Amino acid sequence: MKLKVKHLGIDSAGKPVVLLNRVDCEELGIKSTARVKVKFKNRSKTCIVNVTSNRKILKVGWIGFTEEVRKSLKTKEGCLVEVEVAKYPSSLHFIRERLRGRRLGYKEFYEIVKDTVEGNLTESEIAAFVTSLHYFKLTLEEAANLTLAMVNTGKILKLKKKIIADKHSIGGTLGDKTSILLVPIIASLGITIPKTSSRAITSPAGTADKAECLMPVSLEVEEMERVVRKTNGCLVWGGSLGLAPADDIFIKVEHPLEIDPLLFPSIMSKKKAVGATHVVIDIPTGRGTKVKTIGDANYLAKDFIQLGRILGMKINCAITNGEFPIGYCIGPALAAREALEIIMRKKLVKDQVDKVLDIAGILLSLIGKKNGRELAKKAWLSGKAERKLRQIIEEQGGNPKIKPEDIPIGKFNLEYRAKNSGLVIWMDNWKLAQIARLAGAPKDKGAGIVLRKKPGDKVEKGEIVFTVYAEKERKLERVVKYLETEIPVGIAEKAEMLIQVIKERVVHRKSFILER
Amino acid sequence: MKLKVKHLGIDSAGKPVVLLNRVDCEELGIKSTARVKVKFKNRSKTCIVNVTSNRKILKVGWIGFTEEVRKSLKTKEGCLVEVEVAKYPSSLHFIRERLRGRRLGYKEFYEIVKDTVEGNLTESEIAAFVTSLHYFKLTLEEAANLTLAMVNTGKILKLKKKIIADKHSIGGTLGDKTSILLVPIIASLGITIPKTSSRAITSPAGTADKAECLMPVSLEVEEMERVVRKTNGCLVWGGSLGLAPADDIFIKVEHPLEIDPLLFPSIMSKKKAVGATHVVIDIPTGRGTKVKTIGDANYLAKDFIQLGRILGMKINCAITNGEFPIGYCIGPALAAREALEIIMRKKLVKDQVDKVLDIAGILLSLIGKKNGRELAKKAWLSGKAERKLRQIIEEQGGNPKIKPEDIPIGKFNLEYRAKNSGLVIWMDNWKLAQIARLAGAPKDKGAGIVLRKKPGDKVEKGEIVFTVYAEKERKLERVVKYLETEIPVGIAEKAEMLIQVIKERVVHRKSFILER
Repeated sequence: MKLKVKHLGIDSAGKPVVLLNRVDCEELGIKSTARVKVKFKNRSKTCIVNVTSNRKILKVGWIGFTEEVRKSLKTKEGCLVEVEVAKYPSSLHFIRERLRGRRLGYKEFYEIVKDTVEGNLTESEIAAFVTSLHYFKLTLEEAANLTLAMVNTGKILKLKKKIIADKHSIGGTLGDKTSILLVPIIASLGITIPKTSSRAITSPAGTADKAECLMPVSLEVEEMERVVRKTNGCLVWGGSLGLAPADDIFIKVEHPLEIDPLLFPSIMSKKKAVGATHVVIDIPTGRGTKVKTIGDANYLAKDFIQLGRILGMKINCAITNGEFPIGYCIGPALAAREALEIIMRKKLVKDQVDKVLDIAGILLSLIGKKNGRELAKKAWLSGKAERKLRQIIEEQGGNPKIKPEDIPIGKFNLEYRAKNSGLVIWMDNWKLAQIARLAGAPKDKGAGIVLRKKPGDKVEKGEIVFTVYAEKERKLERVVKYLETEIPVGIAEKAEMLIQVIKERVVHRKSFILER
Repeated sequence: MKLKVKHLGIDSAGKPVVLLNRVDCEELGIKSTARVKVKFKNRSKTCIVNVTSNRKILKVGWIGFTEEVRKSLKTKEGCLVEVEVAKYPSSLHFIRERLRGRRLGYKEFYEIVKDTVEGNLTESEIAAFVTSLHYFKLTLEEAANLTLAMVNTGKILKLKKKIIADKHSIGGTLGDKTSILLVPIIASLGITIPKTSSRAITSPAGTADKAECLMPVSLEVEEMERVVRKTNGCLVWGGSLGLAPADDIFIKVEHPLEIDPLLFPSIMSKKKAVGATHVVIDIPTGRGTKVKTIGDANYLAKDFIQLGRILGMKINCAITNGEFPIGYCIGPALAAREALEIIMRKKLVKDQVDKVLDIAGILLSLIGKKNGRELAKKAWLSGKAERKLRQIIEEQGGNPKIKPEDIPIGKFNLEYRAKNSGLVIWMDNWKLAQIARLAGAPKDKGAGIVLRKKPGDKVEKGEIVFTVYAEKERKLERVVKYLETEIPVGIAEKAEMLIQVIKERVVHRKSFILER
């Protein structure tokens, strides 16, 4: 069928979408979400069909092109294109099989991931695929194949080193600065550690958001490679690199549904894409984190190790305490300041230093070094790690002489004071995260929280428990409103036994952590 | 946040979608598929967020309105609106619970269905809901509650009759004219039968497509009510009535994925919405239909009956033979012609007449009549049923004097001849359906197939097995191409024992029937 082209002037998030009038669809015998092959000159493109009945939007005999299709076919408005019914992509066939519980192999996952990245599957179809992984959980073999499919549909870092170290946290902690401290320690010992990090999804600051307060983190793969060759390390945002790009698309489905079936392939594909050979996975455990019990953390760790074996990576896992925030500062700028103060030995933050040295020790012994924790500690205390961090900052285009006070913090603040005297019994990570987000984090880098007390500390009625910082006053007002009803910190003389009274069916808000 | 309105001039299939620039999204702290509340004057609307980074499409500080949002808020281009972050709808919360396997009750299903119909859920979220029903199969209690939710979010027919009969086929047969024949038979006996039917989804002709060759079928609920009050029956398209409108939205998800988890609520909601009290469900069984074995059909029947009990409907099921086409004519016009010839007693089509009288008998005895099949047969043979059909045609706005030859048939045709002599052993319903669709059905009403032979018939080499009709010559060419590789009818001296040789992994095309 020949149709005239109208340029709609909208982009459809990378998907090759065309709009057809209902009348023409009936003539072609197709419905919404069907596929058509559109030919113009010697070019052709398989597109997803959207349908309108409104002739004001699209007349019969015309086809509406989104920006994606216009650019791909290089059409001019009003020109004629040939439109014919195309088959659904074969990847959809594999999705249907997975929905029925059949296990998929590498080639099938590859087709699905490729079509996801290239925009050839609709939102519904991708959602059904992700949901199928939620129901029939990925076997380890499947997870490995899906990981490889995600790696091979994106860019790959080629460092040609025998040992490439890496570290990853599955997320759920608050105030964690481990990566920013670990990378310079390991790199200063002559070991390659090409660290990529994510920005916040549900938290107030991802490692990339924090590192960005110290240096530029949105690098191209080639720039990243150069920095690593020069310094042995880097601290860059994974999102701009194009490594395993399908992950971002799958996350968009998982997030509103609060499911996380791609945990393994998501993490492992990022590690595999940078060529990691030795990896420590940090599994924060406790209330308010992703993994609630040590038993569950153990199962998860075993799967990571086994998956690493299949993929040719040596993996160790560290089960860490995620019950309350690490260090005192939450939010991009505040956390970056604290990290800088720690590496400069200006401020002793015991829990954070402990965690970094433990993980460095595990990573170094995984590589085969003896007394890894001691080596790491020396690198930190001698100032070697600080010099390495400043070198990385310089190579990534930042100011190597940066001081903690150079990092701007929001000028509006609010003090949260204790309503009674006692001991700090608990801190609710999720509620503290909400407060930091309401204050503007991660968008407003200067927004966040500084804890003045931590669990176990004594506090007097009226004493400051934490201070909230914001760049914009109206965002602080949102925090005030939130704190009218929510209690983020528990202060009591003794542990209280009654937790909650349930009187009717309520919509219970569970915390959900998608960082990985 | 205040933003300026740009009218995008596109409609988003009923969903209140707004477009935001990435910069403004970050300021609001939200991502694609989040919800915002948009306020203008005293009106407000919760909308689904789409994001663009392309400033040519949408500048920072602007918000793009789809037609849905423009109409709802009655804005003018360039005016200022207030935009704030809104919560995800609580229905999404229930979808998340269902994804985790928790069973839902009426109120929860009602929220989900209402938000589906009102466009408050994204494609992904609806797809995840439908997929959750595919995995954790609906319990009968859930199916009943979902049915009621679907009924109560649409229009309802109020006939105020003690007995309202109805009939439904779960689909998968080819050439079936049962409804067109059954409605006038039952109505002529003084029993109310407000029959709604669907158009084809995967078949070459739905009952609505066939009936439309005899009379208008796109009626409003009020018109339908008038026709039924006057004649006791009707033959209308369900799609224009607004009964259980969520069904159409769920079908759009099911179709490309080839899953059918809403079978029960979809069928039952349409019956409940017309107030049916006594229903016969036809379950065609055999290769090429939805239900392959009589054992499976029995289970399905029991569930239908039990579900009817919960919903206050008396249900009987008829397990019928769906192995090969019913009657000789396939496609809207050809089937309508044959139905008219049968009710006029001009042509004896034994299998079709048998089926109608059997189902009429079951329905009449369910209502409490004795000798139902005999009553139905008399109504047919005496011409009472024909007069009733003509009355219905007249009341629906058609020509009551219509003759079979008045119904136009495609003027291009193609004869499929036997390649060898023997007995017709089998007919592949799915392939015959494909042929009719390639020839133009259901869009081209005159397209279809007339069978000259049926299973069990003897055929000589070179004899015509069937004739394909088309309105457009180029569509017939598609049939020729298809028949070069596909064999739709099996002719042999004896049953052949070897069915297929598998040499490598092939993409096996399964037939999938969504009609219900």
